[in-house]
Amino acid sequence: MTIDYRTRLNALQDYLSQNNVDIAMITTPANVFYYTGFNSDPHERFMALIMDNQKKQCILFVPTLDKEIADSESFVKTIVPISDEEDPFAKLKENLQGNIVRFGLEMKTVSMFQHRHLASAFPEAAYDDIQPFINAQRLEKSRSEIVYVQKAVDIIEKVLAEGIKKVKIGMTELELSAELEYLMKKFGAEGPSFSTIVLSGEKAALPHGTPGNRSFQNGDFLLIDMGVVIQDGYCSDITRTFIIGEATDKQKEIYDIVLKSNQAGIHAVKAGVPLKTFDIEARNIIKKSGYGDYFNNRVGHGLGIEVHEEPSIHENNDQTAKKGLLFTIEPGIYIPGYGGVRIEDEVYINEKGVAEILTSFSKDLQIL
Amino acid sequence: MTIDYRTRLNALQDYLSQNNVDIAMITTPANVFYYTGFNSDPHERFMALIMDNQKKQCILFVPTLDKEIADSESFVKTIVPISDEEDPFAKLKENLQGNIVRFGLEMKTVSMFQHRHLASAFPEAAYDDIQPFINAQRLEKSRSEIVYVQKAVDIIEKVLAEGIKKVKIGMTELELSAELEYLMKKFGAEGPSFSTIVLSGEKAALPHGTPGNRSFQNGDFLLIDMGVVIQDGYCSDITRTFIIGEATDKQKEIYDIVLKSNQAGIHAVKAGVPLKTFDIEARNIIKKSGYGDYFNNRVGHGLGIEVHEEPSIHENNDQTAKKGLLFTIEPGIYIPGYGGVRIEDEVYINEKGVAEILTSFSKDLQIL
Repeated sequence: MTIDYRTRLNALQDYLSQNNVDIAMITTPANVFYYTGFNSDPHERFMALIMDNQKKQCILFVPTLDKEIADSESFVKTIVPISDEEDPFAKLKENLQGNIVRFGLEMKTVSMFQHRHLASAFPEAAYDDIQPFINAQRLEKSRSEIVYVQKAVDIIEKVLAEGIKKVKIGMTELELSAELEYLMKKFGAEGPSFSTIVLSGEKAALPHGTPGNRSFQNGDFLLIDMGVVIQDGYCSDITRTFIIGEATDKQKEIYDIVLKSNQAGIHAVKAGVPLKTFDIEARNIIKKSGYGDYFNNRVGHGLGIEVHEEPSIHENNDQTAKKGLLFTIEPGIYIPGYGGVRIEDEVYINEKGVAEILTSFSKDLQIL
Repeated sequence: MTIDYRTRLNALQDYLSQNNVDIAMITTPANVFYYTGFNSDPHERFMALIMDNQKKQCILFVPTLDKEIADSESFVKTIVPISDEEDPFAKLKENLQGNIVRFGLEMKTVSMFQHRHLASAFPEAAYDDIQPFINAQRLEKSRSEIVYVQKAVDIIEKVLAEGIKKVKIGMTELELSAELEYLMKKFGAEGPSFSTIVLSGEKAALPHGTPGNRSFQNGDFLLIDMGVVIQDGYCSDITRTFIIGEATDKQKEIYDIVLKSNQAGIHAVKAGVPLKTFDIEARNIIKKSGYGDYFNNRVGHGLGIEVHEEPSIHENNDQTAKKGLLFTIEPGIYIPGYGGVRIEDEVYINEKGVAEILTSFSKDLQIL
């Protein structure tokens, strides 16, 4: 299956027409990729996909040094290079003639700096936020996209299966993360979708900790949270928690509560109910068990082209779940100074409105 | 040596006082790290260092799940956690009482979305751009910072030396990049400072290409551009180009021109002259040799906490070079469909105003 860029662009154009927007300027790299297939981080350089709804044409502005790759990868074929010495806003003005009254921008991406330059290049223009439309469009994942995500999930599960074979007493968190990221590339990924998290012992209590020189000891929790991005541009994200050597009853109890919470969250997933339901169902299990104070973040987040995207699955999100959503369910119990457990799966609300679980790595407690 | 956060914060506070700014809100993760030592990417969550110049106090707002790490790593000890269900702007308003007339913001980071929320929480406030001041402050690297950068350079050179031993005919770009990134962690880095670039054959003509499944052949250019970020938070960045098997006279000629250009650029480096000089001196060598059309980007960029930061070393930059600047010199010749060569070093303008080259990996043409 391939991605249908034409349909994506047409939907955006319809939206612009319905809302009397003259020009859409899209600068978030993930969104440029979504509409063109050109996947590039321009860093501090300027990159923008312009949809000119007056002339009904699209132009992709890229840094000169990316021109050749953009030519070969972008679905939009009108490409304007901008060299390091040129002023991107002057270049925009030069290429966008006509009476531009309304600009559509991604308000969460466009900086106050860019806004000021736009305002001086196009002093007549007003600005609309097109980000909610784009996010809503990206929110509904097609089957073609899920095929790519599944590919990224399959790779990361292979990495995890292979990686845990290397775990031994005395190995450091950093050493294991190096092995895991090596395996990601070996198994065909472009790289990690975020910096691999390997946390052991009491460090497993840090939901966002970074691997360090702590070495594995008997009785440690070992929390591995990682994902890959593949060359097709889609991500995976999975967490499993293991015990090294021997598990205490308390460790087993905590693991079991988190597992039940994960299962309850997933069991709640379907189209037509508020998104918060998934968080609440998972959270209730942990609350009832008396560990409610040790689970203080949302149960999940969307992913796809980016490893964090909409929707946010938290207990106050009243949005209705619908077909096409893809997100994680990842409850955890984090006890400062003691350790923690997180179990994270990826769930898709499919064409029938029911949960399809993309991750399949065993969730039985494994002692390494 | 350690980093003196107090001095950094005092300089910012003096700047705010001189410019009658009441509150500085710093949200760029690299800047939060610069002033606090807390190194964290909050992704779509809200994180901000607030310097309240009326009450003369600093507050660090972090996502709740990062609270524990922030407590242990941040120099600023007043930390306010924001949970996923809370509104960060309401939380800001709650914690910032008093008559706030002027807000200092990083205009290149603060989005139009954030600006609108700020404007509704603090309707009386006007906004100043404090980014130029912060950039200027970060621009002048202290010796303590260079010690960290040198550590990152030493690791990446060790990786390069070890990595090229693994090169053989038939190996793919992705396989080599996996080996290199594995070695980075093995040698003590936190990870790559950007996605490792390994390009072979005609692909070496892509200044920003990504490694793929192309396998190495006899007579290939092999361009390796990579760096690490270390746990102390500083980056390195180096490029060397090799030939696999046997080099043609044309390949040797191109390599030699790029090497001379690199040397001319570095030779020009000193305090007191315009930054553009370094680009022009390097570029002239390539132009005179007839390859001017194949070098179409700037000669270098600053680095430090980020792998791309100020200054930009391009042929129109009239800013005067001064002590404390750290940047790359990386001319290249890129011939589409044929291949390319880039040689990149890191240069520091030291306390005496002269060039100190941090990279020491041999630049003699190596046939692998």
